[in-house]
Amino acid sequence: MNDPNGGARVDADASAPADRTDIERFSLAPGFHAAAVACGLKAAGALDLALISSATPCAAAGVFTTNRVQAAPVLYDRERLAEDPARIRAVIANSGCANACTGPGGLADTRAMAAGVAKGLGCKAGQVLVLSTGVIGRRLDMARVERGIGLLAAGEAEPGATAAARAIMTTDTRPKVAGADLEIGGRPIAIRGFAKGAGMIHPDLATMLAVVTTDAGIAAAPLQAALESAARRSFNRISVDGDMSTNDTVLLLASGSAGEVAGAAGLEAFTAALTACCASLARQIARDGEGATRLVEIVVSGARDEGEAHRVADAIARSALVRTAIHGGDPNWGRILAAAGASGVAIAPERLSLTLGPPEAAVHVVEGGLPLECDLRAAAATFRADPARVRLDLGQGAAAATVWTCDLSAEYVAINADYTT
Amino acid sequence: MNDPNGGARVDADASAPADRTDIERFSLAPGFHAAAVACGLKAAGALDLALISSATPCAAAGVFTTNRVQAAPVLYDRERLAEDPARIRAVIANSGCANACTGPGGLADTRAMAAGVAKGLGCKAGQVLVLSTGVIGRRLDMARVERGIGLLAAGEAEPGATAAARAIMTTDTRPKVAGADLEIGGRPIAIRGFAKGAGMIHPDLATMLAVVTTDAGIAAAPLQAALESAARRSFNRISVDGDMSTNDTVLLLASGSAGEVAGAAGLEAFTAALTACCASLARQIARDGEGATRLVEIVVSGARDEGEAHRVADAIARSALVRTAIHGGDPNWGRILAAAGASGVAIAPERLSLTLGPPEAAVHVVEGGLPLECDLRAAAATFRADPARVRLDLGQGAAAATVWTCDLSAEYVAINADYTT
Repeated sequence: MNDPNGGARVDADASAPADRTDIERFSLAPGFHAAAVACGLKAAGALDLALISSATPCAAAGVFTTNRVQAAPVLYDRERLAEDPARIRAVIANSGCANACTGPGGLADTRAMAAGVAKGLGCKAGQVLVLSTGVIGRRLDMARVERGIGLLAAGEAEPGATAAARAIMTTDTRPKVAGADLEIGGRPIAIRGFAKGAGMIHPDLATMLAVVTTDAGIAAAPLQAALESAARRSFNRISVDGDMSTNDTVLLLASGSAGEVAGAAGLEAFTAALTACCASLARQIARDGEGATRLVEIVVSGARDEGEAHRVADAIARSALVRTAIHGGDPNWGRILAAAGASGVAIAPERLSLTLGPPEAAVHVVEGGLPLECDLRAAAATFRADPARVRLDLGQGAAAATVWTCDLSAEYVAINADYTT
Repeated sequence: MNDPNGGARVDADASAPADRTDIERFSLAPGFHAAAVACGLKAAGALDLALISSATPCAAAGVFTTNRVQAAPVLYDRERLAEDPARIRAVIANSGCANACTGPGGLADTRAMAAGVAKGLGCKAGQVLVLSTGVIGRRLDMARVERGIGLLAAGEAEPGATAAARAIMTTDTRPKVAGADLEIGGRPIAIRGFAKGAGMIHPDLATMLAVVTTDAGIAAAPLQAALESAARRSFNRISVDGDMSTNDTVLLLASGSAGEVAGAAGLEAFTAALTACCASLARQIARDGEGATRLVEIVVSGARDEGEAHRVADAIARSALVRTAIHGGDPNWGRILAAAGASGVAIAPERLSLTLGPPEAAVHVVEGGLPLECDLRAAAATFRADPARVRLDLGQGAAAATVWTCDLSAEYVAINADYTT
């Protein structure tokens, strides 16, 4: 806890996805505690219930799925944050059951989870937020959840942020953690978060949960603005299968133990560091997409504005044909141009320039909308690299956007054809 | 040619996809001739160049991809139909090369194809339309194409609409043909068409080509209106992988040899029959999606208007998670609700009603947004049926729309990971 880096480093350059973190040494921001138990929602005794808590009340912010079908914990957290975002003490998170499409009974279960945790912490139920992920349309087994909450309250749980990160996994193959550090007015500030993703990942979030903690002192309103800005360039810039879940939530808790961050410059520095932390989590989610073998980074530049760049990059990232071609190491660049053309953005085909691979060794395959003589074997090699990089310049302006996805493999289908059974 | 049914029947009920046609007995509408050759664009001597011609000039209509990247034949056909849609004599169609992203040289190749055919038919180049499908970004091998056109002109080709339907196939596993018949003022009118699809199929069309012929006499403007109406409820209601190609085109040629169709009632009857023919072709395309094992029919009812019904149905049909669940015979209905919720339409979760399977033996799984006690084995069986049927009622109005797609299998990935190489 006293290691200001928490074992985690994140590069601030969102286009250079290193995202290597020492998972076992990872911890939350100073002053936060995490633990997890196996309460029986998942099979085989796997961790499935995590508690993240702060000794002192925190300012909190959240961004949520825009799906019209919203799970009970989403409805509950939105209500809590609207009512009083200034005194949050804890987040309780379960996997194995999404508590979505469960009606008033499901909402009562969520409230009961919060109340159970509050009892253990000696705070009010309204100071506890709730996250759930898993299958839709089934009620939570509350007897198991309550037993788990009892173990967490009694300290009979596996401690640590890594355990919590594992407990929220569903089809994820590995936990996802990231951190960023900054100094404001000579005082160190830590940002530490963890996330789960894998299937159903798409811009505007999707069975994606993240909890980010910081010891910075920021009031709820600017904290919310910082989180929305960071999410826009991180969690909303990833796509795995175009589906959007009923449960997606990113929560940010700020304890203030490192002192107040105030003023435009301080908030800007905090937002930049928060964005770097969230972008690392987002890339880790994309890289761990169901059946994925590598991360795919789509950069669209030369756009009239960032929104258009994002829409074109997103259309490319959503293309099953592009993602299968990358999986096969097949430089079928025509699919990239076709996807861009179908984005709805008024691109000019004769101005397109396409390069594959990293900037330092890019293979230039299209210029002015026409194919160049190029080394197809080198182009194919860029698709087999991790990350595979695609850069499309629209030749219409100066704005750019980056979107991350993963390759699409036969394994994706195998995982998803048989998930509830 | 004298069989008024042309060996083809189509049910007029778009929600009952029988689509059984005797491929070998199929012919175009009376007065049209079709033939195909293997000119060497495809490997292994497969048919790859088809000519559809009429002894007399035809009124013609076309609907085209809305992709911003448009192949040379799309640019050419749009120009031809804008300039003079009243005297079309033929359509020349090749597979093996899309002639897209090929610049001015590609457009010159398209014009040369039309000119070569016109020479053989003794008409003007502007009376010949062109279709191409295949890999993007490669120039046509014009020596081979010209040799093929020579064989077609010399009558040294395989005759028949079935040969033409085979010649435009790419990853299609079977040719797609359909017909519809009607009587107007006591005179029989035939509508006969064929299509290719498979990969990249999506609303607003996608590497989808179709040629529909009729002996009805309809001026170009109402013919265009009829085709646009029919396409809106057929080709624009299918989705295989969400990609939209650079080449998608539906052409309709009307020779007039069966007499004029005039007046609102006549045009309405013609449009209904044309819609039935196009819907059959569309369902055949969806059912033959790459790697597909069955057709999936999504009906959304109870919508405020048809546009909203279509958007919700389309969101469900585009969901990889829904399509893999259907492939696995896994009644994971939560994914259907989640996809509907992410459609952007303001649905009310508490008003949703979901049934699976055919109307006469439907399994009711969700009512008022909540799961019902139901026979999960029976629900699973509906996903393994062909077609698998999903019906979601939004409980908000009286409008409905039907969208067709296919299940998503591991085979889809295998096909698309290795297409150009």
